[in-house]
Amino acid sequence: MSDQCVFCGIVAGDLPSVRVAEDDTTYAFMDINPASEGHLLVVPKRHSRDLVDIEPDDLAAVTLAAQRIARTAVKEFGADGVNLLNCCGADAWQTVFHFHLHVIPRYADKSRERLAAPWQPGVPGDMDVIAALGHRLAAALD
Amino acid sequence: MSDQCVFCGIVAGDLPSVRVAEDDTTYAFMDINPASEGHLLVVPKRHSRDLVDIEPDDLAAVTLAAQRIARTAVKEFGADGVNLLNCCGADAWQTVFHFHLHVIPRYADKSRERLAAPWQPGVPGDMDVIAALGHRLAAALD
Repeated sequence: MSDQCVFCGIVAGDLPSVRVAEDDTTYAFMDINPASEGHLLVVPKRHSRDLVDIEPDDLAAVTLAAQRIARTAVKEFGADGVNLLNCCGADAWQTVFHFHLHVIPRYADKSRERLAAPWQPGVPGDMDVIAALGHRLAAALD
Repeated sequence: MSDQCVFCGIVAGDLPSVRVAEDDTTYAFMDINPASEGHLLVVPKRHSRDLVDIEPDDLAAVTLAAQRIARTAVKEFGADGVNLLNCCGADAWQTVFHFHLHVIPRYADKSRERLAAPWQPGVPGDMDVIAALGHRLAAALD
């Protein structure tokens, strides 16, 4: 736990949140700057900074909690889809440095959300560059 | 496995891909329409449509593979961050209906990516509405 961390404060109950669910290792609560109706966050109770830092067992627990909540949220809110998003690092839009997974219900009715696609799909890359990057990464993983 | 599914074809080796890593249950390969340098996808070998459909053990395996690959990608490519994104449903930007987790290395050098934030952070919602939605979801999860 970090004394400076807002999400540690929420998990500890020292800061307010609208709780959605919790278990031994995870805590889920509503995002107060929602991108859509029902937007929530799932965090590990144990502090970790980001995707690079988090212990795999905490990551698995957070992800499975997010799935369970997402399934219920889609039904309960009549959503047409859902996004899971993790932002690791300020250059990847992370603003609170306690690992969190966004669960964002999505709607055909655009009055219920305020999102835009983060990139244009279907724009092909240079296959030689892609292959070179892929081979390099595969070799580094070996 | 679905005969109509492009990602099942890639996993089976019937369709080409730039393979990054694989294990008994997951397969990782480069995205050919990359949003950034090194953008890749991790999928379960066993077909599932989306986040609602996927078996929890496959979801955990895909997520942990994505973490392992993301850590290496950040180092290998000198990335400044990384995003994990899952799109569940056409209204959530899903275009291939075999579960996949995007691993998107991010860069301070914007010439290495083509992404824009999907929503404006820091725009508060109506706390009464947020609390009502949260309580409703918490009750549905009980």
